[in-house]
Amino acid sequence: MTQTSAAAAERELAEPYLRQVLDTAGLAVEYVRAEGNTLYVRDDDGAEFPVADFAGGYGSVLLGHHHPEITAYARQLLAEHTPIHAQFSRHPYANRLAAELNRIIARELADDEPYYAIFGNSGAEAVEAAVKHAELDRGMRVSELLGSVDAGLAAARAAVADGSATVHGEAAARLGVALAADGDEAVRLLEAAIRRRNDEIVASPPLFLALEGGFHGKLAGSVQLTHNEGYRLPFKSLGAQARFVPQDSPEDLNAVHARERRVLLGLTTENGRVTVTEHEFPVFCAFLVEPVQGEGGIRVLSRAFAREIQDFCARIDCPVVVDEIQSGMGRTGALLASSRIGLRGDYYTLAKTLGGGIAKASVMLVREKRYRRDFEIVHSSTFAKDSFSSHIALKVLELLERDGGAAYRRAEERGAALRSKLDALRAEFPDVVADVRGHGLMQGLEFHDQSEASSPELRQIAASGLFGYFLAGHLLRRHRVRTFPTASAVGTLRFEPSIYVTDSELGQLYAGLHDVCTLLRKQAGDELTAAGR
Amino acid sequence: MTQTSAAAAERELAEPYLRQVLDTAGLAVEYVRAEGNTLYVRDDDGAEFPVADFAGGYGSVLLGHHHPEITAYARQLLAEHTPIHAQFSRHPYANRLAAELNRIIARELADDEPYYAIFGNSGAEAVEAAVKHAELDRGMRVSELLGSVDAGLAAARAAVADGSATVHGEAAARLGVALAADGDEAVRLLEAAIRRRNDEIVASPPLFLALEGGFHGKLAGSVQLTHNEGYRLPFKSLGAQARFVPQDSPEDLNAVHARERRVLLGLTTENGRVTVTEHEFPVFCAFLVEPVQGEGGIRVLSRAFAREIQDFCARIDCPVVVDEIQSGMGRTGALLASSRIGLRGDYYTLAKTLGGGIAKASVMLVREKRYRRDFEIVHSSTFAKDSFSSHIALKVLELLERDGGAAYRRAEERGAALRSKLDALRAEFPDVVADVRGHGLMQGLEFHDQSEASSPELRQIAASGLFGYFLAGHLLRRHRVRTFPTASAVGTLRFEPSIYVTDSELGQLYAGLHDVCTLLRKQAGDELTAAGR
Repeated sequence: MTQTSAAAAERELAEPYLRQVLDTAGLAVEYVRAEGNTLYVRDDDGAEFPVADFAGGYGSVLLGHHHPEITAYARQLLAEHTPIHAQFSRHPYANRLAAELNRIIARELADDEPYYAIFGNSGAEAVEAAVKHAELDRGMRVSELLGSVDAGLAAARAAVADGSATVHGEAAARLGVALAADGDEAVRLLEAAIRRRNDEIVASPPLFLALEGGFHGKLAGSVQLTHNEGYRLPFKSLGAQARFVPQDSPEDLNAVHARERRVLLGLTTENGRVTVTEHEFPVFCAFLVEPVQGEGGIRVLSRAFAREIQDFCARIDCPVVVDEIQSGMGRTGALLASSRIGLRGDYYTLAKTLGGGIAKASVMLVREKRYRRDFEIVHSSTFAKDSFSSHIALKVLELLERDGGAAYRRAEERGAALRSKLDALRAEFPDVVADVRGHGLMQGLEFHDQSEASSPELRQIAASGLFGYFLAGHLLRRHRVRTFPTASAVGTLRFEPSIYVTDSELGQLYAGLHDVCTLLRKQAGDELTAAGR
Repeated sequence: MTQTSAAAAERELAEPYLRQVLDTAGLAVEYVRAEGNTLYVRDDDGAEFPVADFAGGYGSVLLGHHHPEITAYARQLLAEHTPIHAQFSRHPYANRLAAELNRIIARELADDEPYYAIFGNSGAEAVEAAVKHAELDRGMRVSELLGSVDAGLAAARAAVADGSATVHGEAAARLGVALAADGDEAVRLLEAAIRRRNDEIVASPPLFLALEGGFHGKLAGSVQLTHNEGYRLPFKSLGAQARFVPQDSPEDLNAVHARERRVLLGLTTENGRVTVTEHEFPVFCAFLVEPVQGEGGIRVLSRAFAREIQDFCARIDCPVVVDEIQSGMGRTGALLASSRIGLRGDYYTLAKTLGGGIAKASVMLVREKRYRRDFEIVHSSTFAKDSFSSHIALKVLELLERDGGAAYRRAEERGAALRSKLDALRAEFPDVVADVRGHGLMQGLEFHDQSEASSPELRQIAASGLFGYFLAGHLLRRHRVRTFPTASAVGTLRFEPSIYVTDSELGQLYAGLHDVCTLLRKQAGDELTAAGR
């Protein structure tokens, strides 16, 4: 794989630094063709050789690269001159896609409350749309709440004015208002104090809740919901903030709520007395959760903690955004990985495999009882909801659903076969492999930390933050296996092949990982880091 | 066009409310095929009839729908199984695309400072990337500034400690520090006061500058840079804020700067005296500007005001983000419409026609002297920088550049032909047409406001905010012409056809608009609003 040097002379303007980093780890190869579970590289003699793809387009090619039916259909759509740019007209294909997603989701949730669909061009755009919708909804709920507070204030004013009620001493004391001799004046002061306090709360930005290790994209809004500090902190000033809670810790949920909750004040008039009332303010805009964290190290949300999140959010009336961008679309044996653990989303986001490995498609779904139709007027995208990607996505769903859901079962079966290889490695190398996690075709293998390794090369790559990338470079160079670490947990390698991954490719992966584990056990750091040379 | 009623029975889950609104204006037709400058609708007998497309995919199909070479190339790429999902490898096609964009830009700017390219999937994503990069850069500049402030504080402390300098009375007075007998104590108090003040400024979010009427997308960050309040205000809490300035008003630029500028304080030691110094703080993250505003009503930025913006931004060291998403890619006769008015961007954003009407592609370009390579490590997108859209974009550039730039000249020539039709209408109907604006194939026709019309129907649609949509409905139904109002100025119709628009289609548009103007002059509101019936 020396092809990289050939192009060294040309000036690079599309991310040359990233290219250097990839070069260092031996990952800067050029793929020239993709098919099924395979990407092809050309060797020095110009002959193609295959690389078994376990990165799978970061989860985008569950049905393989260039699935014959998808690619043929894409070519047909182009040949038929499908009207890709027909904004602001009828989009029956988008509507059929929404209906088909609903049909499958209703089956998986055993519930037929419909979900409305807003389409986008990338996973991050779907997250942004969900967040925007949740904020529109929150704003409308705040307006309703302020309306009812206003009504209470007006009623109190009127009751005091007509002498049917008086301001209760406690109310005045609570707000630090001196009870004037004049009742009208007292109620006016109370009202002013309440409005000042409420206005301040209403004007403050909302908070989001998300899980430690969570990844929800890298656009200005979505990156603030992504836990990785390297991605998030440089852009902190650009977006509303999240509070991150650890998994499996219900106490932390309650603690963050206790710390952040706000109430609006109002006045109630009852039995001739005006008293101060509290109204829970929707300070949390949404709770974002991945049923299986992808970039966070392939971590499966437990059924018990999913239940805790669901109950907690119901209690504080906070919508749950279930981010299925990486876990969804059949990867774990169901359209929604969350349906397997009993987690019900007010919102879902889907992307990656939705585009069939060709189109750029994403969708944000909102359940009917949360849906605000005004969102359709204020949100749109030139490229989204187009005929090409909608038709491709419909084809993807057709392939997933065909033969009574054979593709889902295959994801389960191939996932189990992959898992047994990883489990075997863990059993053989407990000193090297710290953990194996995942479900279906979304598996991760976590290595023990090498920062205290005896090999100086291993200590160095552990310190560089590129540990997993060097292992990936070795696997690519020596074993023709493509995989990557998860982005926010570089000690974990990810395995997200297509459902067409063969036993032979699993064997190839096993052999490669066995070699890596052996070298790590031997502390042969020089061999493992030779990838870039 | 009664096809819409046929599907009325099916449950709509993909933006049913928008569909209703379109129905009301007679715009909810289904397009079944697209080719060149034409979209096809099927009539009740199943026969296709053509609609002349002046909406042009909101600026995405300058080369027409399904340009034969682009569509053939797309089909070929798919047939060859181009490796669409090959993240974190070499992407020579993306690099070639960056190089080709640079070659053209260097020619148009007559300057060869390179621009680095970060790819995205939509125009809004390109804006978000520009904004994120500008914020990363601002953060790094703030760190450097804080480093130099720290050095000054340390030097002052040392000088006072070794007796080589004393704290100047003015300095103490300015910060409200009582000059203690002890010099060390005085400098410590000064330092503490300075740090408190500086920390507060550093912690506050950045501001953006943008023009009234500007449109930069609808994602959580970009929508805050979009002037339209309907799009922006419901999501205000989600993103950093912009200050919007009117066009052609240099005073407003200076006023907003005077109002918002902040300085960090520091200490300087000179001639035995410690004095307080001021350091300009980069409170403005970026200035966003469209050379021709699209959604704001097709408003051309003047050369004079472009110069003012350029000088102002140079003076305050604020990067200029030139948003060419709608105006660029040849639409006004050059790759960059801004190059025609002497406006030089620190950043450019391009999308729409970059994808050739098929792919979803966008790019954000940053000039070398502003570029921060760390951005490559913290920003990415699964779908972006892929082989399919990079190759399509290269094909688009090839078509634009072919025959010595014949496509640019054709955009100019067809634009002038379109413009002469619009000017003729304005001359004939000065009572109806308020203005005609634009350049090349980006033209707008503004109607006089009809809120005080004698026709009750016209008053009603003027009040509904759907005025331009009803005119568009009439043009579609009666004249088979597709156009739309600009999104933030619904009294202006937009005309952004492809370079292949024929004289006959221009005649069809002219006839349609002539009819609309005649009906408006006659105040025949009932005829104009009959579209949806």
